[in-house]
Amino acid sequence: MKYPGGIVIKKTTNNIEHANRGMSLENDINLSNEFYVDKNIAYIYKKPTPIQIVKVDYPSRNKAIIKEAYFKEPSTTDYNGLYKGKYIDFEAKETRSKTSFTLSNIHEHQIKHLKNISRHNGIAFLIVRFTTLNKTFLLKAEDLLSYMDNNERKSIPLEYFEEKGYLLKDGYNPRIDYLKVIDSIIGG
Amino acid sequence: MKYPGGIVIKKTTNNIEHANRGMSLENDINLSNEFYVDKNIAYIYKKPTPIQIVKVDYPSRNKAIIKEAYFKEPSTTDYNGLYKGKYIDFEAKETRSKTSFTLSNIHEHQIKHLKNISRHNGIAFLIVRFTTLNKTFLLKAEDLLSYMDNNERKSIPLEYFEEKGYLLKDGYNPRIDYLKVIDSIIGG
Repeated sequence: MKYPGGIVIKKTTNNIEHANRGMSLENDINLSNEFYVDKNIAYIYKKPTPIQIVKVDYPSRNKAIIKEAYFKEPSTTDYNGLYKGKYIDFEAKETRSKTSFTLSNIHEHQIKHLKNISRHNGIAFLIVRFTTLNKTFLLKAEDLLSYMDNNERKSIPLEYFEEKGYLLKDGYNPRIDYLKVIDSIIGG
Repeated sequence: MKYPGGIVIKKTTNNIEHANRGMSLENDINLSNEFYVDKNIAYIYKKPTPIQIVKVDYPSRNKAIIKEAYFKEPSTTDYNGLYKGKYIDFEAKETRSKTSFTLSNIHEHQIKHLKNISRHNGIAFLIVRFTTLNKTFLLKAEDLLSYMDNNERKSIPLEYFEEKGYLLKDGYNPRIDYLKVIDSIIGG
Protein backbone atom coordinates (compact mmCIF):
# COMPACT_ATOMS: atom_id res chain seq x y z
CA MET A 1 0.00 0.00 0.00
CA LYS A 2 1.42 3.35 -0.97
CA TYR A 3 0.56 6.62 0.79
CA PRO A 4 1.27 10.12 -0.53
CA GLY A 5 4.89 11.07 -0.04
CA GLY A 6 6.12 7.60 -0.86
CA ILE A 7 5.38 6.18 2.57
CA VAL A 8 5.02 2.45 2.18
CA ILE A 9 3.02 0.65 4.82
CA LYS A 10 3.52 -3.08 4.84
CA LYS A 11 0.42 -5.20 5.34
CA THR A 12 1.33 -7.35 8.28
CA THR A 13 -0.39 -8.33 11.49
CA ASN A 14 0.49 -4.88 12.85
CA ASN A 15 -2.43 -2.53 13.13
CA ILE A 16 -2.36 1.07 11.97
CA GLU A 17 -0.92 2.30 15.28
CA HIS A 18 2.34 0.66 14.39
CA ALA A 19 2.40 1.82 10.81
CA ASN A 20 4.83 4.51 11.82
CA ARG A 21 7.48 2.08 12.98
CA GLY A 22 9.13 1.74 9.61
CA MET A 23 9.83 5.46 9.37
CA SER A 24 13.04 6.71 10.85
CA LEU A 25 13.02 9.54 13.35
CA GLU A 26 15.19 11.56 11.01
CA ASN A 27 12.66 11.14 8.23
CA ASP A 28 9.80 12.18 10.53
CA ILE A 29 11.69 15.27 11.63
CA ASN A 30 12.64 16.23 8.09
CA LEU A 31 9.01 15.94 6.96
CA SER A 32 7.83 17.93 9.97
CA ASN A 33 10.39 20.64 9.20
CA GLU A 34 9.20 20.78 5.58
CA PHE A 35 5.68 21.23 6.87
CA TYR A 36 6.80 24.04 9.19
CA VAL A 37 8.59 25.84 6.34
CA ASP A 38 5.71 25.39 3.90
CA LYS A 39 3.24 26.79 6.41
CA ASN A 40 5.64 29.59 7.31
CA ILE A 41 5.59 28.46 10.95
CA ALA A 42 9.31 27.99 11.47
CA TYR A 43 12.55 27.56 9.59
CA ILE A 44 14.49 24.60 10.92
CA TYR A 45 17.03 22.67 8.87
CA LYS A 46 19.56 19.88 9.10
CA LYS A 47 23.24 20.66 9.17
CA PRO A 48 25.64 18.81 6.87
CA THR A 49 27.46 15.77 8.24
CA PRO A 50 30.97 16.77 9.32
CA ILE A 51 33.62 15.11 7.17
CA GLN A 52 37.40 15.16 7.43
CA ILE A 53 38.73 15.40 3.89
CA VAL A 54 42.15 13.85 3.33
CA LYS A 55 42.60 13.52 -0.41
CA VAL A 56 41.00 15.38 -3.31
CA ASP A 57 41.64 14.72 -7.00
CA TYR A 58 41.12 17.33 -9.70
CA PRO A 59 40.66 15.44 -12.96
CA SER A 60 39.84 18.75 -14.62
CA ARG A 61 39.94 22.40 -13.67
CA ASN A 62 36.38 22.66 -12.38
CA LYS A 63 35.94 19.19 -11.03
CA ALA A 64 36.94 17.90 -7.64
CA ILE A 65 36.57 14.32 -6.48
CA ILE A 66 37.11 13.51 -2.84
CA LYS A 67 39.04 10.22 -2.86
CA GLU A 68 39.70 9.81 0.84
CA ALA A 69 37.69 11.20 3.74
CA TYR A 70 36.42 10.18 7.15
CA PHE A 71 33.35 10.84 9.25
CA LYS A 72 34.26 13.30 11.98
CA GLU A 73 32.87 13.26 15.47
CA PRO A 74 30.15 15.91 15.36
CA SER A 75 30.91 19.07 17.33
CA THR A 76 27.40 20.45 17.04
CA THR A 77 23.91 19.01 16.71
CA ASP A 78 21.90 17.80 13.72
CA TYR A 79 19.29 20.51 13.51
CA ASN A 80 18.92 24.18 14.11
CA GLY A 81 16.83 27.11 13.03
CA LEU A 82 14.32 29.73 14.00
CA TYR A 83 10.90 29.65 15.57
CA LYS A 84 9.04 32.79 16.68
CA GLY A 85 12.33 34.66 16.57
CA LYS A 86 13.97 32.13 18.91
CA TYR A 87 17.09 30.12 18.16
CA ILE A 88 16.22 26.40 18.08
CA ASP A 89 18.88 23.67 18.29
CA PHE A 90 18.55 19.95 18.78
CA GLU A 91 19.94 16.50 18.29
CA ALA A 92 17.75 13.53 17.32
CA LYS A 93 18.57 9.97 18.35
CA GLU A 94 16.95 6.57 18.18
CA THR A 95 17.51 3.74 20.60
CA ARG A 96 16.30 0.15 20.48
CA SER A 97 16.58 -0.18 24.24
CA LYS A 98 13.31 -0.50 26.14
CA THR A 99 14.71 0.84 29.38
CA SER A 100 17.30 3.58 28.87
CA PHE A 101 19.17 5.89 26.54
CA THR A 102 22.95 5.45 26.50
CA LEU A 103 24.76 8.74 26.99
CA SER A 104 27.68 7.75 24.77
CA ASN A 105 25.25 8.49 21.91
CA ILE A 106 25.89 12.16 22.59
CA HIS A 107 29.49 13.24 22.09
CA GLU A 108 31.35 15.50 24.47
CA HIS A 109 31.52 18.33 21.94
CA GLN A 110 27.79 18.12 21.45
CA ILE A 111 27.23 18.49 25.19
CA LYS A 112 29.44 21.55 25.15
CA HIS A 113 27.49 22.86 22.17
CA LEU A 114 24.14 22.40 23.97
CA LYS A 115 25.57 24.18 27.03
CA ASN A 116 26.65 27.11 24.88
CA ILE A 117 23.24 27.35 23.24
CA SER A 118 21.49 27.35 26.62
CA ARG A 119 23.91 29.89 28.06
CA HIS A 120 23.17 32.28 25.20
CA ASN A 121 19.40 31.88 25.56
CA GLY A 122 18.75 29.54 22.68
CA ILE A 123 16.27 26.68 22.98
CA ALA A 124 18.25 23.44 23.00
CA PHE A 125 16.91 19.93 23.40
CA LEU A 126 17.14 16.28 22.44
CA ILE A 127 14.53 14.25 20.64
CA VAL A 128 14.93 10.59 21.57
CA ARG A 129 12.86 7.80 20.09
CA PHE A 130 12.64 4.45 21.85
CA THR A 131 11.91 2.58 18.62
CA THR A 132 10.91 -0.71 20.23
CA LEU A 133 8.39 1.09 22.45
CA ASN A 134 7.42 3.48 19.64
CA LYS A 135 7.73 6.39 22.07
CA THR A 136 9.39 9.66 21.17
CA PHE A 137 10.39 12.21 23.80
CA LEU A 138 11.64 15.75 23.76
CA LEU A 139 14.06 16.44 26.61
CA LYS A 140 15.27 19.97 27.27
CA ALA A 141 19.05 20.41 27.27
CA GLU A 142 18.80 21.79 30.80
CA ASP A 143 17.27 18.52 31.99
CA LEU A 144 19.86 16.47 30.12
CA LEU A 145 22.70 18.50 31.62
CA SER A 146 21.19 18.41 35.08
CA TYR A 147 20.89 14.61 34.85
CA MET A 148 24.55 14.32 33.81
CA ASP A 149 25.66 16.60 36.64
CA ASN A 150 23.78 14.62 39.26
CA ASN A 151 24.18 11.02 38.15
CA GLU A 152 27.06 8.63 37.75
CA ARG A 153 25.10 6.42 35.35
CA LYS A 154 26.16 6.30 31.73
CA SER A 155 22.57 6.12 30.57
CA ILE A 156 19.30 7.94 31.19
CA PRO A 157 16.48 5.63 32.27
CA LEU A 158 13.17 5.74 30.43
CA GLU A 159 11.53 6.93 33.67
CA TYR A 160 13.54 10.15 33.51
CA PHE A 161 12.18 10.86 30.03
CA GLU A 162 8.67 10.10 31.28
CA GLU A 163 9.13 12.40 34.25
CA LYS A 164 11.06 15.34 32.78
CA GLY A 165 10.54 14.94 29.05
CA TYR A 166 7.58 15.59 26.78
CA LEU A 167 5.99 12.71 24.89
CA LEU A 168 5.67 13.56 21.19
CA LYS A 169 2.66 11.97 19.60
CA ASP A 170 2.71 10.67 16.03
CA GLY A 171 0.64 12.73 13.66
CA TYR A 172 0.03 12.89 9.97
CA ASN A 173 1.24 16.38 9.16
CA PRO A 174 3.42 17.34 10.86
CA ARG A 175 4.45 13.82 11.76
CA ILE A 176 5.83 14.97 15.09
CA ASP A 177 4.70 18.38 16.20
CA TYR A 178 7.63 19.14 18.46
CA LEU A 179 7.11 22.89 18.19
CA LYS A 180 3.90 22.51 20.18
CA VAL A 181 6.09 21.49 23.10
CA ILE A 182 8.38 24.44 22.45
CA ASP A 183 5.32 26.70 22.71
CA SER A 184 4.68 25.44 26.20
CA ILE A 185 8.37 25.91 27.09
CA ILE A 186 8.46 29.47 25.75
CA GLY A 187 5.09 30.23 27.34
CA GLY A 188 5.99 28.86 30.75
CA MET B 1 58.26 37.89 12.76
CA LYS B 2 55.87 35.77 14.72
CA TYR B 3 52.87 37.14 16.61
CA PRO B 4 50.87 35.27 19.25
CA GLY B 5 48.46 32.84 17.68
CA GLY B 6 50.90 31.80 15.01
CA ILE B 7 50.26 34.84 12.81
CA VAL B 8 53.29 35.30 10.63
CA ILE B 9 53.89 38.75 9.21
CA LYS B 10 56.33 38.80 6.35
CA LYS B 11 58.82 41.63 6.31
CA THR B 12 58.36 43.17 2.92
CA THR B 13 57.99 46.68 1.63
CA ASN B 14 54.39 46.63 2.87
CA ASN B 15 53.76 48.68 5.93
CA ILE B 16 51.80 47.48 8.94
CA GLU B 17 48.48 48.50 7.41
CA HIS B 18 48.83 45.68 4.96
CA ALA B 19 50.01 43.11 7.45
CA ASN B 20 46.52 41.68 7.52
CA ARG B 21 46.52 40.81 3.85
CA GLY B 22 47.94 37.38 4.30
CA MET B 23 45.14 36.29 6.63
CA SER B 24 42.06 34.89 5.05
CA LEU B 25 38.67 36.30 5.92
CA GLU B 26 37.65 32.86 7.15
CA ASN B 27 40.58 32.78 9.52
CA ASP B 28 39.77 36.27 10.83
CA ILE B 29 36.16 35.29 11.44
CA ASN B 30 37.08 32.03 13.14
CA LEU B 31 39.47 33.84 15.48
CA SER B 32 36.86 36.51 16.20
CA ASN B 33 34.30 33.81 16.99
CA GLU B 34 36.75 32.12 19.36
CA PHE B 35 37.20 35.45 21.09
CA TYR B 36 33.43 35.91 21.38
CA VAL B 37 33.00 32.44 22.89
CA ASP B 38 35.93 32.83 25.29
CA LYS B 39 34.57 36.14 26.55
CA ASN B 40 31.06 34.71 26.73
CA ILE B 41 29.82 37.43 24.38
CA ALA B 42 28.27 35.21 21.71
CA TYR B 43 28.27 31.67 20.41
CA ILE B 44 28.77 31.61 16.66
CA TYR B 45 30.22 28.65 14.78
CA LYS B 46 30.99 27.38 11.32
CA LYS B 47 28.82 24.72 9.74
CA PRO B 48 30.39 21.67 8.11
CA THR B 49 30.99 21.74 4.35
CA PRO B 50 28.19 19.89 2.59
CA ILE B 51 29.45 16.73 0.89
CA GLN B 52 27.65 14.25 -1.33
CA ILE B 53 28.93 10.81 -0.35
CA VAL B 54 28.90 8.20 -3.12
CA LYS B 55 31.07 5.34 -1.93
CA VAL B 56 32.08 4.20 1.54
CA ASP B 57 34.38 1.28 2.36
CA TYR B 58 34.27 -0.57 5.66
CA PRO B 59 37.66 -2.26 6.06
CA SER B 60 36.61 -3.26 9.56
CA ARG B 61 33.45 -3.14 11.61
CA ASN B 62 34.04 0.23 13.26
CA LYS B 63 35.90 1.93 10.49
CA ALA B 64 34.45 3.74 7.52
CA ILE B 65 36.49 5.29 4.73
CA ILE B 66 34.78 7.53 2.24
CA LYS B 67 36.30 6.61 -1.12
CA GLU B 68 34.21 8.76 -3.44
CA ALA B 69 32.44 11.99 -2.61
CA TYR B 70 31.75 15.40 -4.12
CA PHE B 71 31.41 18.94 -2.85
CA LYS B 72 27.74 19.87 -2.87
CA GLU B 73 26.38 23.28 -3.64
CA PRO B 74 25.72 24.80 -0.22
CA SER B 75 22.06 25.20 0.68
CA THR B 76 22.75 27.28 3.76
CA THR B 77 25.44 29.70 4.88
CA ASP B 78 28.85 29.21 6.48
CA TYR B 79 28.16 30.56 9.94
CA ASN B 80 25.39 30.77 12.45
CA GLY B 81 24.81 31.09 16.14
CA LEU B 82 23.49 33.20 18.96
CA TYR B 83 24.12 36.74 20.14
CA LYS B 84 22.05 38.41 22.87
CA GLY B 85 19.40 35.75 22.36
CA LYS B 86 19.16 36.56 18.64
CA TYR B 87 19.69 34.10 15.81
CA ILE B 88 22.72 35.14 13.75
CA ASP B 89 23.40 33.76 10.27
CA PHE B 90 25.88 34.82 7.64
CA GLU B 91 28.01 33.95 4.67
CA ALA B 92 31.59 35.20 4.27
CA LYS B 93 33.17 35.80 0.87
CA GLU B 94 36.35 37.27 -0.51
CA THR B 95 36.75 38.93 -3.87
CA ARG B 96 39.86 40.16 -5.64
CA SER B 97 37.86 42.62 -7.67
CA LYS B 98 38.41 46.29 -6.89
CA THR B 99 35.04 47.40 -8.18
CA SER B 100 32.30 44.87 -7.53
CA PHE B 101 31.18 41.61 -5.94
CA THR B 102 29.90 38.96 -8.37
CA LEU B 103 26.52 37.59 -7.32
CA SER B 104 27.23 34.11 -8.66
CA ASN B 105 29.36 33.74 -5.52
CA ILE B 106 26.10 33.30 -3.63
CA HIS B 107 24.10 30.26 -4.68
CA GLU B 108 20.36 30.33 -5.22
CA HIS B 109 19.73 28.07 -2.22
CA GLN B 110 21.73 30.38 -0.02
CA ILE B 111 19.61 33.33 -1.13
CA LYS B 112 16.50 31.35 -0.22
CA HIS B 113 18.10 30.49 3.11
CA LEU B 114 18.84 34.15 3.88
CA LYS B 115 15.25 35.05 2.96
CA ASN B 116 13.93 32.40 5.34
CA ILE B 117 16.14 33.64 8.17
CA SER B 118 14.97 37.23 7.65
CA ARG B 119 11.33 36.18 7.40
CA HIS B 120 11.59 34.40 10.76
CA ASN B 121 13.27 37.37 12.44
CA GLY B 122 16.83 36.14 12.47
CA ILE B 123 19.73 38.47 11.75
CA ALA B 124 21.16 37.51 8.36
CA PHE B 125 23.98 39.19 6.50
CA LEU B 126 27.01 38.84 4.26
CA ILE B 127 30.58 39.68 5.11
CA VAL B 128 32.47 40.52 1.93
CA ARG B 129 36.15 41.32 1.81
CA PHE B 130 37.62 43.13 -1.17
CA THR B 131 41.08 41.64 -0.64
CA THR B 132 42.90 43.91 -3.09
CA LEU B 133 41.48 47.00 -1.39
CA ASN B 134 41.79 45.43 2.06
CA LYS B 135 38.22 46.52 2.85
CA THR B 136 35.70 44.29 4.58
CA PHE B 137 32.00 45.07 4.63
CA LEU B 138 28.98 43.71 6.40
CA LEU B 139 25.85 43.90 4.25
CA LYS B 140 22.48 43.02 5.74
CA ALA B 141 20.56 40.30 3.90
CA GLU B 142 17.68 42.76 3.44
CA ASP B 143 19.98 45.10 1.50
CA LEU B 144 21.38 42.22 -0.55
CA LEU B 145 17.88 41.00 -1.42
CA SER B 146 16.63 44.48 -2.16
CA TYR B 147 19.59 45.01 -4.53
CA MET B 148 18.83 41.76 -6.33
CA ASP B 149 15.14 42.64 -6.63
CA ASN B 150 15.86 46.05 -8.12
CA ASN B 151 18.85 45.47 -10.36
CA GLU B 152 19.55 43.48 -13.48
CA ARG B 153 23.30 43.48 -12.83
CA LYS B 154 24.98 40.23 -11.91
CA SER B 155 27.29 41.98 -9.48
CA ILE B 156 27.04 44.48 -6.66
CA PRO B 157 29.27 47.53 -7.14
CA LEU B 158 31.63 48.55 -4.38
CA GLU B 159 29.66 51.81 -4.06
CA TYR B 160 26.63 49.88 -2.88
CA PHE B 161 28.67 48.32 -0.07
CA GLU B 162 30.01 51.78 0.81
CA GLU B 163 26.51 53.22 0.84
CA LYS B 164 24.44 50.44 2.45
CA GLY B 165 27.04 48.26 4.13
CA TYR B 166 29.13 48.69 7.24
CA LEU B 167 32.90 48.88 6.98
CA LEU B 168 34.52 46.41 9.39
CA LYS B 169 37.86 47.64 10.70
CA ASP B 170 40.74 45.29 11.34
CA GLY B 171 41.50 44.84 14.99
CA TYR B 172 43.74 42.71 17.09
CA ASN B 173 41.23 40.82 19.19
CA PRO B 174 38.64 40.33 17.88
CA ARG B 175 40.20 40.68 14.44
CA ILE B 176 36.92 41.87 12.99
CA ASP B 177 34.37 43.00 15.52
CA TYR B 178 31.30 42.41 13.38
CA LEU B 179 29.01 42.10 16.42
CA LYS B 180 29.53 45.80 17.08
CA VAL B 181 27.67 46.43 13.83
CA ILE B 182 24.98 43.96 14.88
CA ASP B 183 24.54 46.02 18.06
CA SER B 184 23.73 49.07 15.99
CA ILE B 185 21.32 47.00 13.85
CA ILE B 186 19.53 45.55 16.88
CA GLY B 187 19.57 48.92 18.60
CA GLY B 188 18.27 50.89 15.62
